[in-house]
Amino acid sequence: MAERIQDVLRYIELHETEYVTLLQEFCRQPSIAASGEGMTEMAEMVLKRLELLRAEPRRIETGGSPVIYGHIEGKSPRTLGFYNHYDVQPADPLNEWISPPFDANVMDGYLYGRGAVDNKGGLVARIAAVDAWFHVWGELPVSVKFFAEGEEEIGSPHLASFAKENPELIVCDGYMWEGGSKEPNGPPEIALGAKGMLYVELFSGDSADVHSAKAAMLESPVWRLVWALATLKDEKENILIEGFYDGIPELTRAEKEALNTDIFDMEKAHNHFGGNRYLPGLTRNELLTRLYYKPTCNICGISAGYQGQGSKTILPGKASAKLDFRLVPGQDPTRIPGLLRTHLDKHGFGDIEVVCLSGCKAYRTDPETPFAKAAVSALEKLYGTKACIRRSEAGTSPMYTFCEGKAIPAAMFGATNKDSSIHSPNEKLGLANFVQNIKITAMVMEELSKY
Amino acid sequence: MAERIQDVLRYIELHETEYVTLLQEFCRQPSIAASGEGMTEMAEMVLKRLELLRAEPRRIETGGSPVIYGHIEGKSPRTLGFYNHYDVQPADPLNEWISPPFDANVMDGYLYGRGAVDNKGGLVARIAAVDAWFHVWGELPVSVKFFAEGEEEIGSPHLASFAKENPELIVCDGYMWEGGSKEPNGPPEIALGAKGMLYVELFSGDSADVHSAKAAMLESPVWRLVWALATLKDEKENILIEGFYDGIPELTRAEKEALNTDIFDMEKAHNHFGGNRYLPGLTRNELLTRLYYKPTCNICGISAGYQGQGSKTILPGKASAKLDFRLVPGQDPTRIPGLLRTHLDKHGFGDIEVVCLSGCKAYRTDPETPFAKAAVSALEKLYGTKACIRRSEAGTSPMYTFCEGKAIPAAMFGATNKDSSIHSPNEKLGLANFVQNIKITAMVMEELSKY
Repeated sequence: MAERIQDVLRYIELHETEYVTLLQEFCRQPSIAASGEGMTEMAEMVLKRLELLRAEPRRIETGGSPVIYGHIEGKSPRTLGFYNHYDVQPADPLNEWISPPFDANVMDGYLYGRGAVDNKGGLVARIAAVDAWFHVWGELPVSVKFFAEGEEEIGSPHLASFAKENPELIVCDGYMWEGGSKEPNGPPEIALGAKGMLYVELFSGDSADVHSAKAAMLESPVWRLVWALATLKDEKENILIEGFYDGIPELTRAEKEALNTDIFDMEKAHNHFGGNRYLPGLTRNELLTRLYYKPTCNICGISAGYQGQGSKTILPGKASAKLDFRLVPGQDPTRIPGLLRTHLDKHGFGDIEVVCLSGCKAYRTDPETPFAKAAVSALEKLYGTKACIRRSEAGTSPMYTFCEGKAIPAAMFGATNKDSSIHSPNEKLGLANFVQNIKITAMVMEELSKY
Repeated sequence: MAERIQDVLRYIELHETEYVTLLQEFCRQPSIAASGEGMTEMAEMVLKRLELLRAEPRRIETGGSPVIYGHIEGKSPRTLGFYNHYDVQPADPLNEWISPPFDANVMDGYLYGRGAVDNKGGLVARIAAVDAWFHVWGELPVSVKFFAEGEEEIGSPHLASFAKENPELIVCDGYMWEGGSKEPNGPPEIALGAKGMLYVELFSGDSADVHSAKAAMLESPVWRLVWALATLKDEKENILIEGFYDGIPELTRAEKEALNTDIFDMEKAHNHFGGNRYLPGLTRNELLTRLYYKPTCNICGISAGYQGQGSKTILPGKASAKLDFRLVPGQDPTRIPGLLRTHLDKHGFGDIEVVCLSGCKAYRTDPETPFAKAAVSALEKLYGTKACIRRSEAGTSPMYTFCEGKAIPAAMFGATNKDSSIHSPNEKLGLANFVQNIKITAMVMEELSKY
C-alpha cells in the first residue's frame, strides 16, 4: 500500500473519538425533512463545520431546504464529489427505540440514533477524511466538492432543478454517493448505478359503500381493481403492459459473468426478508439478474371496504392500490404512465384512474472511468481482496437526477453494517464501520489522484 | 272490505298515540347485542308487555340472550307466527345522529332512534295489532305465537339450536318475518324467501413488510391474493369455482313473468346506490334475475401494505380479503368452502388460507300455502291493488335456520319507509308507516282465519 496514505489512515484511527463526537453532535440535532423540524439549525451546523474545514461553504437556496455546498482545491487536477444529505427520516415509532433517537448514545460499539447511518454518518465520514488529509499533509491529493442536500428523505424534489441551475458546480470526476454497506467478513461491495422508480396510485370508483345484497346488480370498484391489476402482471412475474420492456438492453457477457462472482448469499440474505419467500423455480443467477437488471411491478398497498375484525357485508364504493415500478436503463418514467393508461383502456378499465406520485430514471456509471477505477482500486487496496462490483443497486437513488445531465460517474459503496435499521427504530452505525468509511473516503482521494 | 276488520283498523288509527308511546318506551331501552348493553332489561320489558297482552310469555334460555316466546289462542285453527328481535345494532357514530339514538324523539312525522325500524318497530306493530283485536272483539281471529330473539344483529348464533330444541313450539302456519318496506306511492311488496350467505376471509402470506427493491426476487402475498381473486370471478360476473352453480334451479315461467310486473324502478333504486353503477349491458329483467335468483361473489374488503397518504415503498408481507357469497336455493354453504379450497389448489394457490366466518342457506316459501295466500290477500285488500310478489329478498335472513326443519312458510313484508337508515345513524320510522304496519298485521290475522 502506498506511503502517504498510511499516515492518513493511522491518523484516522488515532482520532476516532474526535470523529465519533462530531457525528454525535450531528445526530443530536434533529433534522426531519417531513416535518421541517430542525432543518435550519442542521443546515447551519453543516455550513459551520465546512467552514472549519476551509471548504468555503455556501448555502444554496433551492425552494426547499438549502443545499450546503463546499469546495476545496487539491494537488491533482481530479475532483472528487461527495453527495450526502443532512435530513433524516421521522423517528417514530418512538417507543421502539432502545435509546432516544436524538441522544446518539454509544452502546456495545454502536452509535444509536436517527441519521447515524442515513446519512449523517456518511457526511461526517467525508468531512473526517478531508480533515485527516489536511492534518497529516496540509493539503489534499485531489479537489473535493461537498453537496449536502436537505430533502433526500422526501424524494429530493429540488435536486433536478438544482443540478440544472448549477451545471458547472456539479461537475467533477465522480461522486461517492451517500454510502454503502458490506458483509462483516465479505469483500468490499460497490454499486455503479441505481434503479429508477415510477410510483403510481390506481383509483377505482368513488361511491358510497352499499349493502352487499346489491352486489347482484352493481359494478364493484374493488372487483374492477382486482381484475385490472391481474392484467398488469402474470403469475410468472411477466409485466404485461405493452412497451414496458422496450429499450432495456440485454445483459452483456461481462454482466452475466459478474453474477457468478457476486457475493450475494441466498441463505444469509433470506434472513433479512422477514419470512418472505424467493420466487419459485428460479436459479440464484436468475434471481440476481432480476435484482440488478430487471424492472419490477410491485403492489405496495391495496385498500377497499371493511378491514376490521369479523364480517361486514358491504359493496365497497371505492378501492385503490399503490404500485412501485423499479426501472432499469432504457426505461423512461415519464413514458410508462401513458403505456399503463393505454393498457388499462385496452383491457376495458378506462374507469380506473392512474395518478403518478413520483418518477426517477435508473442510472449507470461507466466502470472504465477514472473515478470508477479509483473507487474499486481504493476498496481492493484497503481490504486486500477483489471487490464485488455491481452495475446497479437493487434500490433507487436520485443519482440520475443529479448526474445525468453532465454524465458524471457515481457509485455507492462503504463499510456500513448491514443490520443498520435505516428508516426504522434503532438505526445504528458500528463505530468500527464508521472508521472504515472514513478510511475508504481517504483512500479514494488518494487513488483518484493517480488517474 | 270485510266488516269486523274495519273496526279493528279504526281502533288502530284512534290509538296511534298509545302505540307510538309504547314504541318510544321500547326504543329508549338500549339493547345492543354486540356489547350486551341493556339486553337483560330489554328482554324483561318485552316479557312484561306480552304479559299485559295475556300471551303467557316465557323467557327461553338459548346460551346467549333469551328468546321471549308468547302464545295466544284464537278462534280459528290457524296460527300466525311473528318473528322479531329485540336487540339492535350499535348506535355509533354517535355524533352523526340529529337526535340522540336512545331518546326516540318524534320529529316531522318520524320517530328517530336506534331500533325504531330494526326491529322494535316491527315487534311493537305485532303487539299493537293483537292488542287492537282484543280491545275491539275480545278475542283473536287466529292463534298467534311471538318469538322475539335477542341475537339477530350478531348473526343469530343460537337460533338454529333453539329451533331444533323446540320443534313443536315453532310450528305454525307461517311467519311474518321481521318486517318489510314499500315505496310511498307503490303497491305493497312481499318477499317469500331470502338469499343465503357464505362469508369467508382469504389470507395470503404472514411475513414482515420488506423494502420493495426486494420485490425483484421475492414472492408477493398481495400479488398472489390479487391473482387468486381474479380466478374466482371473471369480468362478466361469472363465478368460476367449479360446482358453485350446481343445484340451482332454472327460473320457472311464473318467476320470469313476475319480473315483468315487479315494481323495481331502475332510476329510483339507483338513488339509493350511493353513486354505484348498474352492471353494464344487462336489461332490467336480467338485473332483477340476478337480484332475486342468482348467487353473488362480492369482495367486502381487501387489505395489504401501505394505505396512507403518499408513497411508501414496501413489499407487504401479508394480504387479506373478505368475501360474501349470497346464495340461492340449491346451494349449500357447508359445501362451498370445499369447492373454493379445491379451486384455489387447482389454480396453484394452495398457500392462500380460507377461513369461513358464517354460513346460512337460502329459504323459499311456497306461494300456494294458506299463509302466503293470506299475506298477499291482506296486503291487496288493505291497499286495493295487486301486490308485488317476490320469491326472495335480495338480502339474507335466518329464515332458513328457523323454518327449514318444519318447512314453515315465512315472508317479509310491511309498509316501512325505504329511507329508514337501518344500521346507520338517524334510523327513523315514519309514524304513518308504523300505523300501516300495525294494520297490515291485523289484516293478516283476519285473512289467515279464512283459509
